[in-house]
Amino acid sequence: MSKDSYHKTWKDRLHDIIYEADTPIGKVFDVTLLILIVLSIIFVMLESVKGLPNDIYNILYYGEWVITVFFTFEYIARIIAIKRPSRYIFSFYGIIDLLSTLPLYLSFFLTGTSALLAVRALRLLRVFRILKISRYIGESNRLVRAIKDSGAKILVFLFAVLVLCIIMGTVMYMIEGEENGFKSIPISVYWCIVTMTTVGYGDIAPTTPLGQFIAALIMIVGYGIIAVPTGIVSAEYAADRKSGKVHLNTQVCSNCNASDHKDGAKFCHKCGEDLHNE
Amino acid sequence: MSKDSYHKTWKDRLHDIIYEADTPIGKVFDVTLLILIVLSIIFVMLESVKGLPNDIYNILYYGEWVITVFFTFEYIARIIAIKRPSRYIFSFYGIIDLLSTLPLYLSFFLTGTSALLAVRALRLLRVFRILKISRYIGESNRLVRAIKDSGAKILVFLFAVLVLCIIMGTVMYMIEGEENGFKSIPISVYWCIVTMTTVGYGDIAPTTPLGQFIAALIMIVGYGIIAVPTGIVSAEYAADRKSGKVHLNTQVCSNCNASDHKDGAKFCHKCGEDLHNE
Amino acid sequence: MSKDSYHKTWKDRLHDIIYEADTPIGKVFDVTLLILIVLSIIFVMLESVKGLPNDIYNILYYGEWVITVFFTFEYIARIIAIKRPSRYIFSFYGIIDLLSTLPLYLSFFLTGTSALLAVRALRLLRVFRILKISRYIGESNRLVRAIKDSGAKILVFLFAVLVLCIIMGTVMYMIEGEENGFKSIPISVYWCIVTMTTVGYGDIAPTTPLGQFIAALIMIVGYGIIAVPTGIVSAEYAADRKSGKVHLNTQVCSNCNASDHKDGAKFCHKCGEDLHNE
Amino acid sequence: MSKDSYHKTWKDRLHDIIYEADTPIGKVFDVTLLILIVLSIIFVMLESVKGLPNDIYNILYYGEWVITVFFTFEYIARIIAIKRPSRYIFSFYGIIDLLSTLPLYLSFFLTGTSALLAVRALRLLRVFRILKISRYIGESNRLVRAIKDSGAKILVFLFAVLVLCIIMGTVMYMIEGEENGFKSIPISVYWCIVTMTTVGYGDIAPTTPLGQFIAALIMIVGYGIIAVPTGIVSAEYAADRKSGKVHLNTQVCSNCNASDHKDGAKFCHKCGEDLHNE
Repeated sequence: MSKDSYHKTWKDRLHDIIYEADTPIGKVFDVTLLILIVLSIIFVMLESVKGLPNDIYNILYYGEWVITVFFTFEYIARIIAIKRPSRYIFSFYGIIDLLSTLPLYLSFFLTGTSALLAVRALRLLRVFRILKISRYIGESNRLVRAIKDSGAKILVFLFAVLVLCIIMGTVMYMIEGEENGFKSIPISVYWCIVTMTTVGYGDIAPTTPLGQFIAALIMIVGYGIIAVPTGIVSAEYAADRKSGKVHLNTQVCSNCNASDHKDGAKFCHKCGEDLHNE
Repeated sequence: MSKDSYHKTWKDRLHDIIYEADTPIGKVFDVTLLILIVLSIIFVMLESVKGLPNDIYNILYYGEWVITVFFTFEYIARIIAIKRPSRYIFSFYGIIDLLSTLPLYLSFFLTGTSALLAVRALRLLRVFRILKISRYIGESNRLVRAIKDSGAKILVFLFAVLVLCIIMGTVMYMIEGEENGFKSIPISVYWCIVTMTTVGYGDIAPTTPLGQFIAALIMIVGYGIIAVPTGIVSAEYAADRKSGKVHLNTQVCSNCNASDHKDGAKFCHKCGEDLHNE
Repeated sequence: MSKDSYHKTWKDRLHDIIYEADTPIGKVFDVTLLILIVLSIIFVMLESVKGLPNDIYNILYYGEWVITVFFTFEYIARIIAIKRPSRYIFSFYGIIDLLSTLPLYLSFFLTGTSALLAVRALRLLRVFRILKISRYIGESNRLVRAIKDSGAKILVFLFAVLVLCIIMGTVMYMIEGEENGFKSIPISVYWCIVTMTTVGYGDIAPTTPLGQFIAALIMIVGYGIIAVPTGIVSAEYAADRKSGKVHLNTQVCSNCNASDHKDGAKFCHKCGEDLHNE
Repeated sequence: MSKDSYHKTWKDRLHDIIYEADTPIGKVFDVTLLILIVLSIIFVMLESVKGLPNDIYNILYYGEWVITVFFTFEYIARIIAIKRPSRYIFSFYGIIDLLSTLPLYLSFFLTGTSALLAVRALRLLRVFRILKISRYIGESNRLVRAIKDSGAKILVFLFAVLVLCIIMGTVMYMIEGEENGFKSIPISVYWCIVTMTTVGYGDIAPTTPLGQFIAALIMIVGYGIIAVPTGIVSAEYAADRKSGKVHLNTQVCSNCNASDHKDGAKFCHKCGEDLHNE
């Protein structure tokens, strides 16, 4: 895949390893990273569980240190390996990577660590970058495109559902009233969303005959309109499926960080940099 | 878009601003209106929440006054700007607009304001008219058409579901009986709708073995038939998607209030009036 | 539609009225029948509600008598109007019609009327025959065909879901055990069906960590496989939509009771009888 | 179907009976087996129910013996009938068949029988092999293929849902906290899966306004993305539907156990063995 690797500087080789997954070492690196991320998430989850033996909490603490150190080195390496670091640092994954390393360092300054939990959970988003190593790359590209194509339509649809929920929630507030659990309009709207999306917790449920009748109507309508977004995605996906070639390489430009290059492309489609991919 | 605006009277210009969104002022007007409507809905919701500081209830009261005055002027402007006011007044949005301004005035005569809550919530429907300013116009037009095309079929389907629910509700009433929460046939039918639509509150749940067996059957059937409306919309939408050009302008005839004109149309397709759109 | 109606005997004319809906009187008859059936169902439902004024129970009792008498005459008329009565009597709707008239007569002999409730609810099925008067006839024909085409596949699918539920139900019975509400394997299977179909009553819910983990797996799998029947119906319906002419008449052969004749057909496609439809 | 059956050895004939379903005896064998498997599953389920008369437990015990003996003979026959027994023994169904016969024998050595329950429930999987006798064979082949084709995409999708659930679960843990039932992050993630898949038990439900707001967002998002796997399967299935011939025979090679032969094939597509199918 890279006959001319002797032309590459060590920076180029570092770039191939950590940004791409077409070489064996690049794959090993990605799998290691994947395992560490998953471990890290398991640590975050276990820390919140009460009543485990103290030894486990100690392991979680030291494990977090090891992962943080690895993430720190990886973050620095990513900045070094690219020619224009700002292109990486301010990209979506650049910010996620930074947030993945910070929590432990910040916990020295901030005592309430719970606020940092969600930040640590964001590490999981990094997994999506690594997915490119797998055979799922083509599938996920196509999926993302189908969702993007359907996005505007589904947003319009979800907005219409929300408007319907606000109107019906107000109606149910007037019918059922505060004594039956519909304490305010926001609560009623929450109930209406729970019902319309067919989640149906049952923490709030209509008890008056008229309320139950309206609720049944809302359910039947919700049952009918759940078909709409599905129909949209089906049609978009089917159309996309016919049109389409999907690229299967994981090339990332070492200058401007652009990805999604054509299979076999030699130069970056964005900045013209050599992709070292012959 | 409107080179000949010097030919337009002030009424025509007012019409462009409040009925259309192809000019900058028209867009500003629509965005202002959108913000006011959303604010108004937030006010309605917050008013129903108990236990907030008194200051907030005061702000809500004066905010409602400001919005009502704006809506009143807007309603009058809409009547003035159109050549045949009756076309607007008795249209769907004309009635919604009137209902949007009335509640506060009516509250002087009617003491129980709760009956006016739902009317105020209807204001939200006005948002759909404003959506034309956005890039979602094409999508929503296509969505509405797909739903209309599928409408008759989905109604037939929902009716069949309702018949099934009534029959199975009666059966469950006989099996489970009043001691297990199935107090009457209407309640049993309500339970059956809750189950069939996969909402599943759990406020009523079968407890006898036979009842649970029948309930499991109802669920599996419901799971199988949820596919039907989806299939219909998918097929309709896919067919519509192929056939289709959608108009992206927001022209409204200043004489007869007709919309949905062809892109670049100069005259109303309904009454022949000049659209002042050159 | 029927220029040669003077050739018709009174039996033929009766047949046109009660079996078909292409003539004005036929439509009036069908609408009357529709109203009576719906009324009858409302009566069945209200009878089961406790705590209403006694007057209402009296009205329900006499109303049931009126409806039963009408249904009795209608049943006799249907037998007279057809040349081969056995074709009607032993048809699906023939049996439903008989069951619709019997309950009140049987209640003289059988004291426990509750067993007859479900039979009375079956009257609702008669509505589907009357639907042919409406503009929905084409839609419902196409719907029924799409469901028939998908039937075998959806059955295979539902059977697979059932097998999965039995296996996972047994696993959950072993994990959660009787102390957490999973009292026996049938109950666990019932829980698994409730979960897999996303109904989720919450009357039984896993409480052990392992149980919750398995339950989460079951839900995610259920979420993924709900797509399968939908995809099937979508594809079948889309294929059917392209292929297809649907007949819009309501002709029924007065000899053999066959329906679904071609628009403009003069003779029964099954027995060759003249359809009197010129 | 088999004119040259006189060329066949008794082993070949045994093979036709127990591995295939194209001959009358093969069908009888398969139906017998189907009934025994279903009976066996009913026995497993009933055994777990408490409070039945002792006689029934006795019948279940002896019934289990009869079925085990039959399964034992069947397993031996299957090994004899095939030329390369290892091909059967280590195949998926070979292992399932072995597991179907063992539980009762093992219960002599192992006292806690509950661990063997799930193994006995696995017998149900054998039903899928027998389904080949039915007219559903074509359908299920096509179904399986559509699911296989969509598999990678749906896995990517389910993984994305899982990541979303972990992140939102962590957020809800911080918002709602332990006092509202969100005791740890794993529990919160479990709640998020229950909500996102629209199961909605209601054993854990948000009670703070912010928590309910986030929950409503999660539901609406879940409602929107349920469309994605459906769209995928629809498109794959529709594409598959057009492309395709499906084989309707149940031929299994007596040498290497390969199935899925072309209709009318004379020799095994895998090892070249004569299929004795002329």
